[in-house]
Amino acid sequence: MADKKMVEAITSMEEDFAQWYTDIVKKADLIDYTSVKGCMVFKPAGYAIWELIQRQLDDRFKATGVENVYLPMFIPESLLEKEKDHVEGFAPEVAWVTQGGLQPLQEKMCVRPTSETLFCDFYKNEVHSYRDLPKVYNQWCSVVRWEKETRPFLRSREFLWQEGHTIHATREEAEERTIQMLNVYADFCEQVLAIPVVKGQKTEKEKFAGAEATYTIEALMHDGKALQSGTSHNFGDGFAKAFEIQYTDKDNTLKHPFQTSWGVTTRLIGAIIMVHGDNSGLKLPPLVAPTQVTIIPIRQKDAGVLDKAYEIRDSLKARGIRVKVDDTDKTPGWKFSECEMRGVPIRIEIGPKDIEAGKCVMVRRDNGEKFECALSDINDKVKELIPVIQKDMLEAARERRDSQTYVATTKEEFEKIFSEKTGFVKAMWCGEQACEDEIKEKFAVTSRCMPFDQETLSESCVCCGKPAKKMVYWGRAY
Amino acid sequence: MADKKMVEAITSMEEDFAQWYTDIVKKADLIDYTSVKGCMVFKPAGYAIWELIQRQLDDRFKATGVENVYLPMFIPESLLEKEKDHVEGFAPEVAWVTQGGLQPLQEKMCVRPTSETLFCDFYKNEVHSYRDLPKVYNQWCSVVRWEKETRPFLRSREFLWQEGHTIHATREEAEERTIQMLNVYADFCEQVLAIPVVKGQKTEKEKFAGAEATYTIEALMHDGKALQSGTSHNFGDGFAKAFEIQYTDKDNTLKHPFQTSWGVTTRLIGAIIMVHGDNSGLKLPPLVAPTQVTIIPIRQKDAGVLDKAYEIRDSLKARGIRVKVDDTDKTPGWKFSECEMRGVPIRIEIGPKDIEAGKCVMVRRDNGEKFECALSDINDKVKELIPVIQKDMLEAARERRDSQTYVATTKEEFEKIFSEKTGFVKAMWCGEQACEDEIKEKFAVTSRCMPFDQETLSESCVCCGKPAKKMVYWGRAY
Repeated sequence: MADKKMVEAITSMEEDFAQWYTDIVKKADLIDYTSVKGCMVFKPAGYAIWELIQRQLDDRFKATGVENVYLPMFIPESLLEKEKDHVEGFAPEVAWVTQGGLQPLQEKMCVRPTSETLFCDFYKNEVHSYRDLPKVYNQWCSVVRWEKETRPFLRSREFLWQEGHTIHATREEAEERTIQMLNVYADFCEQVLAIPVVKGQKTEKEKFAGAEATYTIEALMHDGKALQSGTSHNFGDGFAKAFEIQYTDKDNTLKHPFQTSWGVTTRLIGAIIMVHGDNSGLKLPPLVAPTQVTIIPIRQKDAGVLDKAYEIRDSLKARGIRVKVDDTDKTPGWKFSECEMRGVPIRIEIGPKDIEAGKCVMVRRDNGEKFECALSDINDKVKELIPVIQKDMLEAARERRDSQTYVATTKEEFEKIFSEKTGFVKAMWCGEQACEDEIKEKFAVTSRCMPFDQETLSESCVCCGKPAKKMVYWGRAY
Repeated sequence: MADKKMVEAITSMEEDFAQWYTDIVKKADLIDYTSVKGCMVFKPAGYAIWELIQRQLDDRFKATGVENVYLPMFIPESLLEKEKDHVEGFAPEVAWVTQGGLQPLQEKMCVRPTSETLFCDFYKNEVHSYRDLPKVYNQWCSVVRWEKETRPFLRSREFLWQEGHTIHATREEAEERTIQMLNVYADFCEQVLAIPVVKGQKTEKEKFAGAEATYTIEALMHDGKALQSGTSHNFGDGFAKAFEIQYTDKDNTLKHPFQTSWGVTTRLIGAIIMVHGDNSGLKLPPLVAPTQVTIIPIRQKDAGVLDKAYEIRDSLKARGIRVKVDDTDKTPGWKFSECEMRGVPIRIEIGPKDIEAGKCVMVRRDNGEKFECALSDINDKVKELIPVIQKDMLEAARERRDSQTYVATTKEEFEKIFSEKTGFVKAMWCGEQACEDEIKEKFAVTSRCMPFDQETLSESCVCCGKPAKKMVYWGRAY
C-alpha cells in the first residue's frame, strides 16, 4: 500500500507532462521553492547531480587548456552599455543594484546576466601583445535574468552555469575554439548524460546578442519538445572593437583580437529528467547519479541481514562506487518505489534467504531488468553494468528522438506534422528571415538550428518555394 | 639583469609590509582590479589555489556527513529583518536590488551577506519531525558586503566562501557540530595550508550577530598581525524561535531545533601569502600549489634538452604531480625569479651537462636548499619532498608565530609590548566588557579569542586587577 501511494502521487507524463515534471522535481527531492519568486533551492539530491556534471565537464575543459577564473557579479551600467546589440538583448531582464550599505550608488550596477562585458574590461588590461594570446578562461558561477515565467532547472531568475570566454589573435583560431567547445558539450551530453544532441548553427534571428555566429546543441525531450542544451558563440572582433581591446602583433602593428564565449547551465538537469524519466520517476545515468547503487535489506531485523548489506556497501565503496544502504524503518515496497523515484541506476535486494543461498537480487532502473547475482560477483557485476546502462540509456534516448524526428518538404506536410505531433521537423529553408518569421507565427515553432550534418531533402524552401539554402531543424522549444 | 629587475620590483616586507603584500598579489598574477570598486578578478593562478582549497576542504566536510546545497543569492528585506541582532549586524553593509527588469520591485532584496535567514526559511519548510533532523548542509558561493576599505583577498565587497548551516534536535548536538567544524578548519589549516592556528572562543563583544557563541581560528601573519581565518557559530534556538521553526519530538511535543553555521573565505589565500611569503615572493605549500614543480631547461635550444624536460614532466604528471616546463624564450635567470615569485615549491633545472651526467639540479622554494638529483630518482625524490616541505613550512610558521607570542601580566607589560612590537599577547581577563573596551581603545588591539588551551598566567585581570576568569589572546587584526 505504501509504495502504491508514492507512485500514485505523481501525475503520469501522458496525462500532463508539465505536472509530471514538477512532481518529479519535488518527489525526487531535487528542488524546493523559496520566498523569492523564481529563485529555487537546490537540495542535496539536486545539487549533487550538478556537482557531478561540473567536475566531469571541468576535467574535459581543462584537457583542452581551459583555465578557471572568477570575475565580479556586478556590472556597472556604463560597462553593460558598451556593446549595442548586447545591451539591447539583456538590459530588459536584469536585476539592478541601486544602493550599497546606507548610501545610494552613484552608478547603478546590474547583477551579471552573463559576463561578456566584464571579460572584455578585464582583457583590455591583460592583452597587449601577441604573446598574451590566446587566453582561454572559464568561470563557474550563478547569473540572474529577471524572467516572468519560471520553471525549476529550465528557467529561473537565478541559475548556475559555467561561462567560457576566450580571446585569440585570429578569426580562424576563435572559430576553431567555438566549434571545439561545442564538440566538448556534445560529447559530454552523449557520453555522460546519455543524451543525444543535434549540433548546428543558429539562424541570424536566433543568435546571441552581440555574436557573429552562435552554435547550439539541441536535445529532444520525452514530450517531443526541443531543449537548447548548450551554446557556443563566435564574436569575431565586435566586442574587441566596442571595448577597444588591441594587441601588438609580431609585425608590430596594432590589431583587434577575436573572442568567443560558451556556456551550459543547470537546465541540463531538466534535460536529464525529461529525456530519461518515466512514470515511476527519475532515471539517472550512472555517471551523474549521486547514488549509483542502493542496497535494500529485506527483513532487516533478522540476524545478519543488515551486516551483510553494510559489507556489500563497503566493498562497493572501496571500488569507487557511490552506494547507500536504505536501513530506515520504511517497508521494502516503499523503499523500492522511493529508489525508483530518485532514479538510482541499480537496486540490490538482499534478505535472509538470499544470504543463505549466497546471492542477491539486482534490478536495473533503466529497463526494469531483474536478475539474481552471486554475492561474490556483486562488485564485478556492478562495475560491468555501469557502462552498459550508460550505453543502453543513450541508445533508448536516440531511438525515441529519431522516432520523433520528421521530414517536411512542403508547407502542407509541415503543417500536418505540427498539427498532429510534437518533435523535430527537418525542412529546407531559403535563408530569408521572412520565411522564418512566417513559420514561427503560423505553427508556433522556432528554428532550432542549421545542423552541421546537412541533407538535401528537396530543392525549395518549405515556406516560400524559392531555392533552398539550408536544411533546418524546427521544433517547439522549452 | 632580467631577474634582478623582477625581484627589485617588489617592495621588501621590512620596508612596507602592506605594499609588499600588494606587490606579491599583482606580480604572482593572483588578482586583477576591476572597474567595480572593491570587487576583484581572481586570475587563473589565484583561482587555482581556491579550487585546491575547495576540493580538499569539501572532502573533509563530506567525510563528516556534510551535504552541499545551493540557496538563492537574494534575501527579501522582510526575511533579513526577522532576527533582530542579525539584521543590526548586517543591514548597514548590504547591497540592495530595487529593480528587476524594467519594473521597480515591490519589496527590495539584498544580495546575501551571509545566508542564515535563507536557511531558516528553507528549514522551516523542511523540518517537521525529529526524523527530519539533523540536516548538515553547506554551500560554496559568493557573498557581498559593502565595505569601505578593501584589500585583495582580505576584505572585498564580493568574496568567495563556503557557509555551512546545520540544524539539530538538541543543544548538545549543535554544540558538538560547532566544535567539530572548528576542528576541521584547524586541521585543514595546519595540514594543508601549513598555517598553525589558535583555537578559541570569541568574547561576547566580538561574537557573530545573532549567535550564542562564536568560535574562531586565529593565525599570525609575518608582520605580527592576527588574521581571523575561520569561524563556527552556535545559534542555540534563537533563529529557530525568530523564524518559528518547530519539530515534533519522539514524545509528541513541539520543540524548537538548534542551529549552527560556519565558514571560511578566500581570505585564506591572504593568510598563505602573509604567513609563508618572503621578499622573493609567494611560497605555496605543495598541497595547494597549482604548480608543484617547474622544470626550467638551461640552454634549451641545445639538442635533447627540451625533450628531456618534457620527458621528466610527463613522468611526474603520470604520478599525479602538478608540473610545468617553462619553455618560453625568457632567460633562465628570469625564469628562476618568476618561479620564486609565484611560489612554486620545487624547481628543477636541467641543461646539456646535467643530462650528460644523468642528473639535474633541484631547488626547494621554502628554504632555498639546492641539491643534485639523479635523473632516475626524480619521481621518488619529488614524491618524498612534498610531505617534507609541507611539514617544514608548518614548523617554520609555528616557530615564527611562537617567537611573536608574548605574555603580559600587568597593564604596563601589556602597554610596553604593544608599543614596541606586534604579535599575540596572552593576558588574563576579568570577563567584563569595560576592560575589553578600555584595552581596545588604549592600545588599538582587539581580543582575538579565549583559547581552548587555557593557562593561568596570573590571578588578576591585566586591565582592572580584579580576579581573572579567562586567558585571552590579544592582537592587532586584519
